[in-house]
Amino acid sequence: MQQDDPDITPVTETAPIATRTHGGRAKCLQRLTRLSLPVPRTTALSFRAVKDIAEGRMPDVACILAPFGDDPLLCVRPSSEDPDWGGPSAVLNIGMNDATHAALSERIGTEAATRLYNRFVRSYAIHVERLDPDMFEDLPVTGPEALAESFRAYHEETEQDFPQDAATQLAAVLRSMARAWRGTTARLLRQAKGAPADAGLGLVVQEMALGLGKTGECGSGVIQLASSGTGLPRITGRYLSQSQGREALQGDSRSMFLARDARGPSLEDLAPEAFATLAEYSRLMRYRLREEMQCEFTIENGNVHVLDGVRASRSARAAVRMAVRLAEDGVIPRDEALCRVDPRALNEMMHRQVDPSAKRDLIGTGIAASPGAASGRLCFSAADAQAAQSRGEACILARRETGPEDIRGMHAAVAVITERGGATSHAAVIGRGLGLPCVVGLTGLQFDMKTERLIARDGRNFRAGDMITVDGTHGDVLAGEAPLHEASQDAAFQAMLTWAEDYCDIGIRANADTPADAETARKFGADGIGLCRTEHMFFESGRLTVMREMIFADAPDDRRTSLERLLPMQRADFTDLFRIMQGRPVCIRLFDPPLHEFLPSDREGLRELAESLSRPLSDVTRRAEQLSEYNPMLGMRGVRLGITVPEIYDMQARAIFEATIAASEDGVPVVPEIMIPLVSARREVELVKTRVDAVAAAVRNETGKDFSFRLGVMVETPRAALRAGEIAPHAAFLSFGTNDLTQMTYGLSRDDAGKFMSTYVKQGVYPEDPFHTLDHEGVGELLTIGAERGRAARPDLVLSICGEHGGNAESIAFCRAAGFDYVSCSPFRVPIARLAAAQLNIRPTLPPRALKTS
Amino acid sequence: MQQDDPDITPVTETAPIATRTHGGRAKCLQRLTRLSLPVPRTTALSFRAVKDIAEGRMPDVACILAPFGDDPLLCVRPSSEDPDWGGPSAVLNIGMNDATHAALSERIGTEAATRLYNRFVRSYAIHVERLDPDMFEDLPVTGPEALAESFRAYHEETEQDFPQDAATQLAAVLRSMARAWRGTTARLLRQAKGAPADAGLGLVVQEMALGLGKTGECGSGVIQLASSGTGLPRITGRYLSQSQGREALQGDSRSMFLARDARGPSLEDLAPEAFATLAEYSRLMRYRLREEMQCEFTIENGNVHVLDGVRASRSARAAVRMAVRLAEDGVIPRDEALCRVDPRALNEMMHRQVDPSAKRDLIGTGIAASPGAASGRLCFSAADAQAAQSRGEACILARRETGPEDIRGMHAAVAVITERGGATSHAAVIGRGLGLPCVVGLTGLQFDMKTERLIARDGRNFRAGDMITVDGTHGDVLAGEAPLHEASQDAAFQAMLTWAEDYCDIGIRANADTPADAETARKFGADGIGLCRTEHMFFESGRLTVMREMIFADAPDDRRTSLERLLPMQRADFTDLFRIMQGRPVCIRLFDPPLHEFLPSDREGLRELAESLSRPLSDVTRRAEQLSEYNPMLGMRGVRLGITVPEIYDMQARAIFEATIAASEDGVPVVPEIMIPLVSARREVELVKTRVDAVAAAVRNETGKDFSFRLGVMVETPRAALRAGEIAPHAAFLSFGTNDLTQMTYGLSRDDAGKFMSTYVKQGVYPEDPFHTLDHEGVGELLTIGAERGRAARPDLVLSICGEHGGNAESIAFCRAAGFDYVSCSPFRVPIARLAAAQLNIRPTLPPRALKTS
Repeated sequence: MQQDDPDITPVTETAPIATRTHGGRAKCLQRLTRLSLPVPRTTALSFRAVKDIAEGRMPDVACILAPFGDDPLLCVRPSSEDPDWGGPSAVLNIGMNDATHAALSERIGTEAATRLYNRFVRSYAIHVERLDPDMFEDLPVTGPEALAESFRAYHEETEQDFPQDAATQLAAVLRSMARAWRGTTARLLRQAKGAPADAGLGLVVQEMALGLGKTGECGSGVIQLASSGTGLPRITGRYLSQSQGREALQGDSRSMFLARDARGPSLEDLAPEAFATLAEYSRLMRYRLREEMQCEFTIENGNVHVLDGVRASRSARAAVRMAVRLAEDGVIPRDEALCRVDPRALNEMMHRQVDPSAKRDLIGTGIAASPGAASGRLCFSAADAQAAQSRGEACILARRETGPEDIRGMHAAVAVITERGGATSHAAVIGRGLGLPCVVGLTGLQFDMKTERLIARDGRNFRAGDMITVDGTHGDVLAGEAPLHEASQDAAFQAMLTWAEDYCDIGIRANADTPADAETARKFGADGIGLCRTEHMFFESGRLTVMREMIFADAPDDRRTSLERLLPMQRADFTDLFRIMQGRPVCIRLFDPPLHEFLPSDREGLRELAESLSRPLSDVTRRAEQLSEYNPMLGMRGVRLGITVPEIYDMQARAIFEATIAASEDGVPVVPEIMIPLVSARREVELVKTRVDAVAAAVRNETGKDFSFRLGVMVETPRAALRAGEIAPHAAFLSFGTNDLTQMTYGLSRDDAGKFMSTYVKQGVYPEDPFHTLDHEGVGELLTIGAERGRAARPDLVLSICGEHGGNAESIAFCRAAGFDYVSCSPFRVPIARLAAAQLNIRPTLPPRALKTS
Repeated sequence: MQQDDPDITPVTETAPIATRTHGGRAKCLQRLTRLSLPVPRTTALSFRAVKDIAEGRMPDVACILAPFGDDPLLCVRPSSEDPDWGGPSAVLNIGMNDATHAALSERIGTEAATRLYNRFVRSYAIHVERLDPDMFEDLPVTGPEALAESFRAYHEETEQDFPQDAATQLAAVLRSMARAWRGTTARLLRQAKGAPADAGLGLVVQEMALGLGKTGECGSGVIQLASSGTGLPRITGRYLSQSQGREALQGDSRSMFLARDARGPSLEDLAPEAFATLAEYSRLMRYRLREEMQCEFTIENGNVHVLDGVRASRSARAAVRMAVRLAEDGVIPRDEALCRVDPRALNEMMHRQVDPSAKRDLIGTGIAASPGAASGRLCFSAADAQAAQSRGEACILARRETGPEDIRGMHAAVAVITERGGATSHAAVIGRGLGLPCVVGLTGLQFDMKTERLIARDGRNFRAGDMITVDGTHGDVLAGEAPLHEASQDAAFQAMLTWAEDYCDIGIRANADTPADAETARKFGADGIGLCRTEHMFFESGRLTVMREMIFADAPDDRRTSLERLLPMQRADFTDLFRIMQGRPVCIRLFDPPLHEFLPSDREGLRELAESLSRPLSDVTRRAEQLSEYNPMLGMRGVRLGITVPEIYDMQARAIFEATIAASEDGVPVVPEIMIPLVSARREVELVKTRVDAVAAAVRNETGKDFSFRLGVMVETPRAALRAGEIAPHAAFLSFGTNDLTQMTYGLSRDDAGKFMSTYVKQGVYPEDPFHTLDHEGVGELLTIGAERGRAARPDLVLSICGEHGGNAESIAFCRAAGFDYVSCSPFRVPIARLAAAQLNIRPTLPPRALKTS
């Protein structure tokens, strides 16, 4: 080996080793060397060297062996660029042959030496010669005959004697590992984790620290300074006397704790000095490598050897706590801590989760529509859910799909599951808004609503009252009551949020319809409310009846009478919201859904309605039929209602203005934002604006109070985006409703897409579900067109998105690049959006960090 | 008056008179003067002069009077730029006073002179002084006391004596007419006919030719050389002895025919020389003014005076015949004849129409969805319609709305009416395709489907079996059997079509699903089939059951078995179409609708289906529920089905290719076009293309026959238009489905839009129903984007539209400007589209001529 060959180089403080050329393990070992930790002699083979080996160009193995002296025992470990990309198994004890066996028998005893030799032969046979592991299954492991049996089996299959030459062994191991990297399975596995097609493999050849011996404590293990599960600071790991590699982790009953522990023996008790050294080394590694590390070590005759260091695995919540503590300890700056955490990890801290170590009795999987987990008794109607709540029972609402009439039931339930629907179906949207675990599109689980049963694939029946668990984070439904981890919005969570606010350069608002939503939004630091859907307010008890009277009014005057009864209720809603938000902006969307959503859908409901309205059933049925629509998504709703039945918007505008005055009197002045939904033409905006202005003038006149407001447009139709240039002069803001805009751009109903979306994504027809990840190419172009044309016509135009995409890191990146002012998302997604936005500001060129938890 | 004042000028051959400055009547009178016709002396006042008068700047009236000599009798008539824009009533006999009355009494007798004077006084009082006409209602008309009474009434109201001075009278008349033009009603009326806001009025002052007298024949009338109703050449008009102005047309029982007529006396008999002179003058006018004219004339003592000439009013079919005959007589060239006819006028010749002169017993109005008229007995279900047909009875199908299951009923009916729907609803599209009169969106007429009654606004009930008439041209439903005009695709119609083909520079194809459609398309000269919707083929008896078996198949293999039974049927369909079209291109759209359209919608139908499939009802109900969708328009259909259930497209591709071989063997070689519907992403096209190519290879292989085909994409989603650049490399053509594209661009379902579209258009929210007139701004921009990006990626890309807009002149103008290759529309709209395209080519800068029929 030439001394200056960078492709095969001893790992020294100055050797030209980089992660991108030699892999992470090689680089880490160099760093440990620089810290003067007792790392055994190591040589690193670069990606290029390993590629050569795989393609048959074996370097001079003698040169590789040279630095290790005579008769060395070596191990070879993989060193890929990212440890997550995997790699072939390590091979230990290369160099064992009859001669070293004899020498070692002297040092550590014959039995131990033989076990070592025997294990190497088998490992070599299996990993290098690719012999069938079953061959060795029944052979003895110890005793003098064990070696002979292994040699015999080896010879039988390979028709060769076991190679005695260390160079031959090493060459074979290197070739085998280099080729394994190129296997189909290995390639697919690492590509699934995001590795590029040409990802390279490096190898490190390291002198063995034996961990076996007769003089002084010998053994091996791993140590880390924080818990992988909780992230809390605690020395943790396993140690096993007389072991090598990662044997301590393989469930041997003799393996022990690292630090002193009431549950059993520990290294701290067994070898306090070695333990103290190890702890010191670990602290040094954490500080200098700027990361919570897991250290792999060997103790040989009481002396500690550091074999390797890897990033400690971690749960989502541990990731947050570790990053925050590293920053608080001054190891890393706050901006780096922010970038260490996948924003989605915050989800786990905001919601209860199924204990990841628990056994899962899976009965159905669907779309993970709203994160968190809950156990409760199955029920099949909103009324039953409310009844269960009044009995103090946790219940889970199962519906074929949900609609506005189920909202009260959803409030009463601890989780919701639906047979149909996708990531932005009604149940999903409401579930996320309420922070309620929700799984939708459970196509494998049969919902028999008549007999009130869920029928699992395996035939098991679950009836009303049966206990189940919903895992909304993973989209699973489990039988029985699974153990849960509580939510923990602890100090680390709060610190992360506070730091993120300092780095976030785009507004993060919440979609909040109720005072409860608004409280959540404030708790999570939302900059305001970006979308308040007023229609949900009309489903509350007492209001629905008035609403229906309004729908059945024969003349505008009758309609106005009903609306006058709704006015004080709406005014109170808005006053509450304004007070909770304390002067932060609140954007209220005027009434949007089709009126038929407020009518009962079954005959019984219609009969009751006829009674309460004192009208003949035939009248009521007829009106309901008249209002029904083929494609409600594309029907008589939004501004179309506002123009054809203008009394509704008049009432809402009045309620908003009167609430503005009321809330401003005892707090910060309120400047409400009023948003017109489903606009497709400029004239719609002009007409609504004229009426809203007239209501404002009337309220000012009646009360003698002045106030300001801002009127804007929700851009949900492709046409509104295309015509933004002529709409903007009449609108203070444009907020893109990316749910509906996606539906219309694709010609795809979110409620019906579930039937084929998974097929589509699996076959790569769509790279992602466009309701989940904003479609940059199509919908995104409409956003860009709308933003550019709008700003050209009105430079001070405020731009935002308020669809379900609002909380998504990719959408935030898009909105920042397009110069948007804010995004708005479910209250529970505000922290995630905030962190993602901060990361984009800190490292604008990096893609959002992939979730890395154990 | 200065001799060279162009604003107040005698009408001579050389005077500076133009339609744009003096109005159409002044210009026409100058033309008649140039023909040396005996036009009484006339002076023209320009728009500017009349504007001055209206604003109080009265010119020197003495100067206007001067050319007419002493004591003239004059009339003043309006002269606007377009005669359709209306104008104030003419005032006759200005200059009548006590002196002229005395002189006239000598000439025409005291009674006649007094009647004339009296009539002038009243006309002046009413039109100039704006007195209440009722004042004169009970006063005597003749006799010596009549004049005195009129003078007394005049004085009572105005407190002035009736003016005796001709200059005073003329000034007042001019001022009154100039101001009337500015009145609100007059302005709104002319703007409704397309007049610009600043349209001007000219006035012509003409010497009276009296039409009264004692020596020789005296009288007045109108004459024209072709019938306004039929357009056929026939001297027509009315004449009344001892009359003035248009009195002959006011129903006086003494008024007579012009030419000799068995039905009564005629001018030809009464005064053959005057008649011959008049006929000669009319022929000269027709030839030199290059138009069928109506000539207003007076005979004074046997001498003919030509007072005025106006374009003869005409029905739609008359317009076609007149234009063709003018060209055939060499009066105008063919290209001009083509431009003389509103393309929509052809509609009337293709369909039966309600006799416009008949009394209309209107019971409901809706959207004129498919032109033509028919009478028949009311029926309320497809089955009843078929039963009526089998009894040989004409029947009219009334449905709340129609769906695929009604198609057989529509085939059996002579007209269709629906309560719901808009211009592009199912009933409308199918109606137009079948050439069936259709009125949709009949919101005023109550459809009680249970008791099978229509209830009119006035409370009248119409039950199954009652006779009604549907006027699809005007959107009316009439009680009883109205008299109808038969369709007349006569020689003139054919000539117009043939000439239009010579001038048409864009392809006109037909949307045709059945052999009958294709025959119609060929009859009307379509260049090919632009859209063959294959799904209608599956509703035929015998096929629907197999289709349903396919839907209920549990595995791809079972599905394939059902599809194999459909294959020969589809192959036969396509073979027929190819043979009928004789090598002209046929573009077949692959299966498009959601599968649930093929399932029965009621319980009874589901029960029958369960029986015929030998499956439990619960299974069938469940599958139907699974397939049902919230927004079918945005659901599992089109290419989404093609990708998730690929066996359907495989079968269709095979049927197309096998039909191609069969039809090519005994005729012109066929190159079928295959179109993929509802595309939203490039990959969809790639996947379908791969499978279609594979089927083609298999068919070539099995048969040993070669053939070509072209695969293209239907652009119906905004996303497909935006992504045309990446789709085009995989598509030989892009055909824009403007129906769906409009729905998605606006977020507006055509089936649900009817509820508010009329309000929207009335309030000017949308300038037009975008399903009727292509929205250039929004949908049009997507068309332009798609076309530009597609052509940039693939210069030989064939572009077209195939929505309901295809036959519309404005859409054709748009497509020509955007460089499209063809438009495709209902077979019955092909002639209209052809003519519109020819007109655009002949006069590219002119807007399509507005429909001008009487």
